[in-house]
Amino acid sequence: MTTPALTTVITGIGELVTNDPARREELAGQGGLLGLVRDAAVVIEGGRVAWVGPAADAPAADVQVDAGGRAVVPGFVDSHSHLVFAGDRSAEFEARMTGQPYTAGGIRTTVAATRAATDEQLTSHVARLVGEMRAQGTTSVEIKSGYGLSVHDEARSLAVARQFTEDTTFLGAHVVPAGTSAEDYVDLVTGPMLAAAAPHARWIDVFCEDGAFDVDQARTVLAAGSGSGLRGRLHANQLTYGGGVRLACEFGLVAVDHCTFLSDDDVAALADSGTIATLLPGVEFSTRQPYPDARRLLDAGVRVALASDCNPGSCFTSSMALCIALAVREMRMSPAEALHAATATGAAALDRDDVGVLAPGMAADLVLLDAPSYVHLAYRPGVPLVAGVWQAGRPVVAR
Amino acid sequence: MTTPALTTVITGIGELVTNDPARREELAGQGGLLGLVRDAAVVIEGGRVAWVGPAADAPAADVQVDAGGRAVVPGFVDSHSHLVFAGDRSAEFEARMTGQPYTAGGIRTTVAATRAATDEQLTSHVARLVGEMRAQGTTSVEIKSGYGLSVHDEARSLAVARQFTEDTTFLGAHVVPAGTSAEDYVDLVTGPMLAAAAPHARWIDVFCEDGAFDVDQARTVLAAGSGSGLRGRLHANQLTYGGGVRLACEFGLVAVDHCTFLSDDDVAALADSGTIATLLPGVEFSTRQPYPDARRLLDAGVRVALASDCNPGSCFTSSMALCIALAVREMRMSPAEALHAATATGAAALDRDDVGVLAPGMAADLVLLDAPSYVHLAYRPGVPLVAGVWQAGRPVVAR
Repeated sequence: MTTPALTTVITGIGELVTNDPARREELAGQGGLLGLVRDAAVVIEGGRVAWVGPAADAPAADVQVDAGGRAVVPGFVDSHSHLVFAGDRSAEFEARMTGQPYTAGGIRTTVAATRAATDEQLTSHVARLVGEMRAQGTTSVEIKSGYGLSVHDEARSLAVARQFTEDTTFLGAHVVPAGTSAEDYVDLVTGPMLAAAAPHARWIDVFCEDGAFDVDQARTVLAAGSGSGLRGRLHANQLTYGGGVRLACEFGLVAVDHCTFLSDDDVAALADSGTIATLLPGVEFSTRQPYPDARRLLDAGVRVALASDCNPGSCFTSSMALCIALAVREMRMSPAEALHAATATGAAALDRDDVGVLAPGMAADLVLLDAPSYVHLAYRPGVPLVAGVWQAGRPVVAR
Repeated sequence: MTTPALTTVITGIGELVTNDPARREELAGQGGLLGLVRDAAVVIEGGRVAWVGPAADAPAADVQVDAGGRAVVPGFVDSHSHLVFAGDRSAEFEARMTGQPYTAGGIRTTVAATRAATDEQLTSHVARLVGEMRAQGTTSVEIKSGYGLSVHDEARSLAVARQFTEDTTFLGAHVVPAGTSAEDYVDLVTGPMLAAAAPHARWIDVFCEDGAFDVDQARTVLAAGSGSGLRGRLHANQLTYGGGVRLACEFGLVAVDHCTFLSDDDVAALADSGTIATLLPGVEFSTRQPYPDARRLLDAGVRVALASDCNPGSCFTSSMALCIALAVREMRMSPAEALHAATATGAAALDRDDVGVLAPGMAADLVLLDAPSYVHLAYRPGVPLVAGVWQAGRPVVAR
């Protein structure tokens, strides 16, 4: 486009969360972590934040929006989701939560339905979920494959996902498909499947857990991915203690996800390596499992991110606001820590330096809340508080 | 209006929850409780349900709406809320959840702000919350006073509430205001305050708890209310064991609310009296308290309702869907039991025979979910699933 970029100023922001480290000194305590600015304005130009400051000092712009004293926060960065799938598993959920036997379910149901779906059906399904996320304030999302489990179906799952985000993750090593040995399957994942998947993926991930892939197999997959230019991520220590988290730290991965069952050595390894622990409390909510101990991690100096893990089996929420509320209720994070984890640290968990912070030059991904403070995200659980969303400077949700 | 009533048919309903006891035999198990009809249609005429049955048999109507295979459920009946207030207590919530001291807070903050607000401000605030509830599928709501605590402010709180619902509840006996003895305050509540409040109220309620009103005081208030034509409800056994629930059963109240700390005698009294136990799990979520044991009550034959308790102090959610999800996660209700409790039993807790069930002659209060099954209300926690709402036959929400 050769037309001059339109500028937009959002004024009357009662409380602006910037996450800007340069503003940490302006307010003590919780507000400092979030780089809070009161009575603020933001100027957007060409898809990026051009200016942030007191509303009284805001420059003029082509379009003016009045936030009416409400809060504005950075768009949520959901660094862990499994959106490429088909089928419905609500009956399995119902059986699990009521203690009834249910033999037909499990991930293999989703694999069969995903393989049977056309690319168009998968695309339509992902579009619907990404739109649902956007309406709830999520402006960046990572999307994994992992319900294809064949060369063809993993590659096309990633091609579908790539239409929606640059943060696509090859998770061929999600579960060993029926009729295959783990050894043979790892050979497939690290050979022809990786070759087919790599052009569509930025990341590679392994479900490192009893019953899925052990530490040695995970190491093999991560190393192969690295050889094909993919950066590593890991599902680890979700259901049991084990070596997954320490493997992630050994590899210097940017993030390791779940982290529910951690030894003191695991916590120390995370603190030493700087690997981010991404916690997914929606999973524990929807499986009635104990929650990870965010407080322990934070107190040890570990960086914590929050993500949805949106998937049809263990957690079918797409609500980052619910994850924040659960983090406060169940994991003893403060509302400020939880919001920071769902935005700035989520971005860090994807090694993204363009989102999660509202400062000049960053992507203009903003959420207007129908509330005077970000605290309402936890104070008002379950309530849809998103009144407006700008994504790369464009108003994509307005209520 | 003298024009003939418009008829609307909603067809293509993949799963219709009727709650109609006459349909209990059609499907076994969970579906039976809900009077489920698959591939259904509903005809609305003059604000009421005119016809329910298989889509293939549906009569023609002036307006046709295609549910596209999605689920339709009765509008939620929220039988416990405190919407008439002013002020914000998010800082108090943040302090509570992070273990910080907070001396300025508490219910008296809300009382001061409510007294200082104009009728117009209170009306505007209630309208906003009722609209927020409606957008989340709540089509019937009970609203209490209780932040006025003076003759004038309790009466006007109820007059404000009465604009929105017939189910207004006089809760002068919410807390003893500063500078008054409990004895003197009960005299005021049962004397001039009751006289001023009664014209605007259908119900009378007491917060029967250590630190609020004891059983004898609660009995006095309920008896006085009854003498003025108000039916009784009770907050009881929220924070401690005590005699409140048995008092409710002794009075034969239609419902007693909270029921978190119950003795075996309390449970037996509820089962014997038929008094409904209304559980408010949003409170336990937002105060980090233990949840009431719904399973124990249901297994003992007690009828259980779910409500939001939406209020600025202990629980500022307005989401009945979240209450359903919490009931399943934390109180071991099945998704079907939880939905029934949030609709049909909620209506029973207000002694309403016109809402909570979708059958000919009932109010046409319906919610179209953006999901194939009601189970998604618990399976997809935090996600705004309401795609459409009809209230008394009118489309009031459409997305």
